[in-house]
Amino acid sequence: MKRSLQEIADAIAARLKGNGSAEVSGVASIASANGHDLVFVEDEKFLSQALQSGAGAVIAGEFAAHSEGKPLLISSHPRLAFARAARFFEDGKPGHTGIHATALVHRSAKLAASVSVEERALIAEHAEIGVNTRIGAGCVIGRGVKIGPNCEIYPNVTIYSGTTLAERVIVHAGAVLGSDGFGYVRDSKTGRYEKFPQIGRLVIEDDVEIGANTTIDRGALDETRIGRGTKIDNLVHIGHNCRLGRNVVIAAQTGISGSVVIENDVVLGGQVGIGDHVRLEEGVIVGSQGGVLTSKILRGRGVVFWGTPARPLKEYLKQLAALARLRKK
Amino acid sequence: MKRSLQEIADAIAARLKGNGSAEVSGVASIASANGHDLVFVEDEKFLSQALQSGAGAVIAGEFAAHSEGKPLLISSHPRLAFARAARFFEDGKPGHTGIHATALVHRSAKLAASVSVEERALIAEHAEIGVNTRIGAGCVIGRGVKIGPNCEIYPNVTIYSGTTLAERVIVHAGAVLGSDGFGYVRDSKTGRYEKFPQIGRLVIEDDVEIGANTTIDRGALDETRIGRGTKIDNLVHIGHNCRLGRNVVIAAQTGISGSVVIENDVVLGGQVGIGDHVRLEEGVIVGSQGGVLTSKILRGRGVVFWGTPARPLKEYLKQLAALARLRKK
Amino acid sequence: MKRSLQEIADAIAARLKGNGSAEVSGVASIASANGHDLVFVEDEKFLSQALQSGAGAVIAGEFAAHSEGKPLLISSHPRLAFARAARFFEDGKPGHTGIHATALVHRSAKLAASVSVEERALIAEHAEIGVNTRIGAGCVIGRGVKIGPNCEIYPNVTIYSGTTLAERVIVHAGAVLGSDGFGYVRDSKTGRYEKFPQIGRLVIEDDVEIGANTTIDRGALDETRIGRGTKIDNLVHIGHNCRLGRNVVIAAQTGISGSVVIENDVVLGGQVGIGDHVRLEEGVIVGSQGGVLTSKILRGRGVVFWGTPARPLKEYLKQLAALARLRKK
Repeated sequence: MKRSLQEIADAIAARLKGNGSAEVSGVASIASANGHDLVFVEDEKFLSQALQSGAGAVIAGEFAAHSEGKPLLISSHPRLAFARAARFFEDGKPGHTGIHATALVHRSAKLAASVSVEERALIAEHAEIGVNTRIGAGCVIGRGVKIGPNCEIYPNVTIYSGTTLAERVIVHAGAVLGSDGFGYVRDSKTGRYEKFPQIGRLVIEDDVEIGANTTIDRGALDETRIGRGTKIDNLVHIGHNCRLGRNVVIAAQTGISGSVVIENDVVLGGQVGIGDHVRLEEGVIVGSQGGVLTSKILRGRGVVFWGTPARPLKEYLKQLAALARLRKK
Repeated sequence: MKRSLQEIADAIAARLKGNGSAEVSGVASIASANGHDLVFVEDEKFLSQALQSGAGAVIAGEFAAHSEGKPLLISSHPRLAFARAARFFEDGKPGHTGIHATALVHRSAKLAASVSVEERALIAEHAEIGVNTRIGAGCVIGRGVKIGPNCEIYPNVTIYSGTTLAERVIVHAGAVLGSDGFGYVRDSKTGRYEKFPQIGRLVIEDDVEIGANTTIDRGALDETRIGRGTKIDNLVHIGHNCRLGRNVVIAAQTGISGSVVIENDVVLGGQVGIGDHVRLEEGVIVGSQGGVLTSKILRGRGVVFWGTPARPLKEYLKQLAALARLRKK
Repeated sequence: MKRSLQEIADAIAARLKGNGSAEVSGVASIASANGHDLVFVEDEKFLSQALQSGAGAVIAGEFAAHSEGKPLLISSHPRLAFARAARFFEDGKPGHTGIHATALVHRSAKLAASVSVEERALIAEHAEIGVNTRIGAGCVIGRGVKIGPNCEIYPNVTIYSGTTLAERVIVHAGAVLGSDGFGYVRDSKTGRYEKFPQIGRLVIEDDVEIGANTTIDRGALDETRIGRGTKIDNLVHIGHNCRLGRNVVIAAQTGISGSVVIENDVVLGGQVGIGDHVRLEEGVIVGSQGGVLTSKILRGRGVVFWGTPARPLKEYLKQLAALARLRKK
């Protein structure tokens, strides 16, 4: 959808320099941009490249305030402004497509206005889907699942009964939400494992994004909860009874065992492993492949932990240095 | 389904104290229980909480034998008794729902009595499904696959041709069973990889549970086998030609390369990596994120191995202590 | 399909010893072979076992040139010859099955001759599928996706809009191709994450194989690219903007962050983690569970890197030895 530069400047709170009635229709990288595209520069050294590119206009920092050659949108945070501009172009896409003839929506399910249900998706008994939400092809939405407004569920996602998604949640293809947790009780007489009941709920709050083929288990008896604004990459595992706070970031292939508490603003790199009953306090960062042992508590906003068992980065680096000296002996 | 306390006491082999004709209909945590729920206490210090909760009855250890206030089910292993009670309530759920009109069952497939095939599931040529088994929505059951009685296959599972599941196997959503193993032969002239044949079988024995989005490959020429009672968490990978024994427990995101032998009662933590041709002997335990190098043999019932390369916990702890001293120098 | 030994010898460039008109119809392991099967021996010590097996003929190295008892196919690389023989038997299987009545092919999609689309697969608007390609049951092929000739897409795969597959690509069940990368911009005022646009492409070149439940993200603004002949195991994650060269091999559960460059002939073991903006130069090998930190460059054809942070195997072994000495102090 075409947008004038003035409209965009207003939407992203940037200062326009140049012809506000010129129009662009999308975003691109500097290398691939054409005249309908908007690009961005965070670092002054790439500014001349942007100005010489094919782009129709450039979002840039204050450093570009006196530049010439293309219309400019000046922002104190060009990357953020660019992300917002991209979303501004997307508004209204891919659009409401209604309930496909091959979708199976149980008669007891409640669909709000403007819900799209794609090919062969299944909405089971008593499920509820909010305004403007899209359910992708081949999804299986279990009995009594509640999905709020403006969610985007990509194809082939499975959501078990007992799961709730709030507003603007994005779930990528192949993710499994609300599956049984991994809990057994061993019968010492027979050596066999009896399944512990896995009958709790999974609650996903507003603005969460969940990556492709990620799995999040329901609570055993009570709930698993993913807090507002938390972003989860592909192939992540989150076990039963975990409670994640707001704006947590979890990179790909990280695994979180059962009954873990992760407070607001925690950042986990890729392939991190978190043991049962761990607590990660507000703002803690665990570097990729780090491992936090069962029942540990890590604290300190902005403190980076590294390695297994995870320790503050400074200590970890000292240890690497000591090892390096040792090798040379 | 409502059950009298006397029926439950009989089913879980507990000693009833109180009114045996009182009824409950499910299990819950102490925090959330209401009068229709059964709760359990393993640790005496939570007993008073349980007795003051909303629960209709309490499963507890001998320590509770003289307590008052609620009907009690006394057991030497309260957690196990609770798990069994939960299963007792579940009996008959979710119930036989027949073959959905949108399921595709090939005319040469053989379905026993009381099989349920949910929406859009596909059962290919010559597949066989046992009594009382449920095939979830969107599952693809390949040519000639055999699934025994009382299995539960959750939605969107794919089972390749050449796979056999025995009785009471549970497979969670998105799992892939019997896919091709990862085997190639490099042509040294061209540098290209030629696919080695991956035409063997996958055999899953009784009472195995397989987590969401887990993948288990077929044998290359012969078989991959998962022994009776083994429990596998989400996002686990098991390569071709592996042979797992009975009552093995594998936590999430663990990866097992090709031709690995894992004997009975082995326990693997999360994110463990096992190299090709490894043998883990009976009862070995590998802690989370541990790595066992190609062709190694680990032995010792109850011996805990840790780290990469995995070594006995005692040695690992010594090494950590030595490293800590080193850092201080 | 039955083939004469002479036909096979010609197809795999082996030297026939014995009756060329004898026929076999498949490959097998020595332990399970019957008279219709071909087996192979790489190591002379297993030759007598092969000759005494039930097999109809044996592929073996020059060491077998004077052996008796069974027809022989002599090759300088028996394993490669065996792999090629297996493929020779497969030719024409599973065969063209056409467009199943329950497949949903959008009227604007273009399907070449001899395309098979299995049950309930979805081919969206403007998608293009090449000659002889098979799309498995339950697959979702997004808008405008291009898939070349002779590809095999197993069931329940999701391919996002903007993805291109070239020729002879194999994609195993549950894989997700072209999903959004993991990129956000934090708004420092609100602490919330704004999604960075993920609107680039994913390009998969010829002869790539992709394992079950693997996920590969599209480029953010430009492309992610997987080079010709590259083989990727199960549950692997490849982030946005990565560029993989030719004949790269990646074992299960390895994770590759964003904007990584992996040159030709690199080999990555299982559970390896590669940080953002890393460059792995031609022929580098990273051992299982190795970790390469952000922005690092590793080089050296055939050099094996190990551990986290990954260093040359020789150094890693020295360090392990130093640690072992330390423990004993």
